[in-house]
Amino acid sequence: MSEIARVRIAIDAAGTDGGPDVIAAAVDRMLTAHSDLSFVILAESDDSARLAERFSSERVEIVACEHALAADMNAAGAIRRGQGSTMWQALALVHEGAADAVVSGGSTGALMALSRHLLGTLSGVERPALMAAIPTLERSVWMLDLGANIQVDARRLLEFAQLGHVASRLLEGHAPRIGLLNVGTEPGKGPDVVREAARLIDEDERLNYAGFVEADQVFAGAVDLVVCDGFAGNVLLKSAEGTIKLLFAKLQSSFRGSLCGVLARPRLKRLHDSLDPARHNGAPMLGVRGTVIKSHGGTCSRGFARALELAALQARRDLVNCLEQQLLAGY
Amino acid sequence: MSEIARVRIAIDAAGTDGGPDVIAAAVDRMLTAHSDLSFVILAESDDSARLAERFSSERVEIVACEHALAADMNAAGAIRRGQGSTMWQALALVHEGAADAVVSGGSTGALMALSRHLLGTLSGVERPALMAAIPTLERSVWMLDLGANIQVDARRLLEFAQLGHVASRLLEGHAPRIGLLNVGTEPGKGPDVVREAARLIDEDERLNYAGFVEADQVFAGAVDLVVCDGFAGNVLLKSAEGTIKLLFAKLQSSFRGSLCGVLARPRLKRLHDSLDPARHNGAPMLGVRGTVIKSHGGTCSRGFARALELAALQARRDLVNCLEQQLLAGY
Repeated sequence: MSEIARVRIAIDAAGTDGGPDVIAAAVDRMLTAHSDLSFVILAESDDSARLAERFSSERVEIVACEHALAADMNAAGAIRRGQGSTMWQALALVHEGAADAVVSGGSTGALMALSRHLLGTLSGVERPALMAAIPTLERSVWMLDLGANIQVDARRLLEFAQLGHVASRLLEGHAPRIGLLNVGTEPGKGPDVVREAARLIDEDERLNYAGFVEADQVFAGAVDLVVCDGFAGNVLLKSAEGTIKLLFAKLQSSFRGSLCGVLARPRLKRLHDSLDPARHNGAPMLGVRGTVIKSHGGTCSRGFARALELAALQARRDLVNCLEQQLLAGY
Repeated sequence: MSEIARVRIAIDAAGTDGGPDVIAAAVDRMLTAHSDLSFVILAESDDSARLAERFSSERVEIVACEHALAADMNAAGAIRRGQGSTMWQALALVHEGAADAVVSGGSTGALMALSRHLLGTLSGVERPALMAAIPTLERSVWMLDLGANIQVDARRLLEFAQLGHVASRLLEGHAPRIGLLNVGTEPGKGPDVVREAARLIDEDERLNYAGFVEADQVFAGAVDLVVCDGFAGNVLLKSAEGTIKLLFAKLQSSFRGSLCGVLARPRLKRLHDSLDPARHNGAPMLGVRGTVIKSHGGTCSRGFARALELAALQARRDLVNCLEQQLLAGY
């Protein structure tokens, strides 16, 4: 697979709870690890001054912007009032060809709306979707949509399967077994829209459709790609996050103050790291004409670095053009 | 609160993966723990013979039935072909007043359909809902619906909030803070039906409405009662189950063969037990005219015993009549 040699990533410095420090630490990490990467960081003026002091590398450019969008900014508001914001400017750089990818921790709705508005969608794609990685025992599986589309019809779910199929194959190197999220595995189960989507996905012989999956089977690695609407995807992912947090809180209080706790600490730390959402941070927005990665607003520098890593990988593999070509050619 | 002195529970012995042994062990447990309980176990003829050999207590009656419903039996099939089945006979006993409650591990769809068909619904209740307990750090929270209603409108979600409010108050002794499951907490977030339900629940001043909750906040104990449609409820619960399974598999492989693992074993076992779905097994079907508890098909004897315990508690507190009176009186 041919790869693009040098990659320039535009970073929307707003929307990440930890602020510019988290982002700067992530960029530091990436500068050390990858000599072919450069960055342009779009920040509000106060933050941009702090960031400019911090970086002397010529591989990092800081651009001061007029404002940043609120974390709860919706799609309509983003289009109406987004101009000049850090998110808008970052996407504009990709549109102009001055950057190869965008990473943003801002509002999902705003990012989706501005991505469509400024970059457009690929031919034949009606609605872009967010794809996220879910940890399982052996590896991670991809799931889409993750909250960009909360109400969808069966045709959209088919489109998600097609987008996910091509993207996952480009990222992982093999065609994914696709499962459709449902409340049971028998053919008659679930809402009309899910049953209709099953029929459509099953009919598309280019897809490797494995049938319905229930949420618990996702974590057992039953399939490689899970298709669902953004509401269910969000519930699945957040439920897992909440459960992991609960479990580690219980582990901590159970081991506190014991020799066993001291002995167990490194193991528990490794385990926590392997399941940490930060390790899986970075959701590609599939279907827009440009590499756009949504980072979790609450992520740490390691998590933000992982989103940058994913942006670089997608840009190097030219995923957007490959996606369009393969969709046009009937993948 | 006055309680009914003696309680007789009808058990549908079909539908539990572990078969009559699991059920018999659960009944043994309950016979020892509660002198005021008696049981009538409805089983297919082979199973009923085995069970009859096992029990000599006059507090246990075994009834042989012609057949059992398949685990994937849907609502229409259950009504058409359910007569004479273990599930049908168990519900019929409650209808006739020969039992105070039913516990079944059979198909949710069939149990819902036959409960409505044989027992009817409470005045003013359009659709019954399944309510389940979710573990959090300090206690468990209730959630409904859990899969009995996969497509609902805003009025149904309001009804779930009302049913859950009264039931949770009767079971826990205080009015629950109610959260509506959504993909964000800001007022404009989510599908139309969820936003409309928020308006209706908020308008009902008898309810203690706390706003939207995201799935991860449920496990942090942000509210006492979570309202959602059956699709989202199923995804939330199964996602948590899958995550717990994944985490304990990782813990096991991480501690295997180490001194630390030996030392940690009792702690991990206690932790596992505290989160084990079996501990939270037993979902009350709210809104039908009778105490009906859905048990997880895959549960163990401890889990089945917990469902029996819940059935006994509901029957003793006369939850069904209280529910109807309080709904009629405007709770």
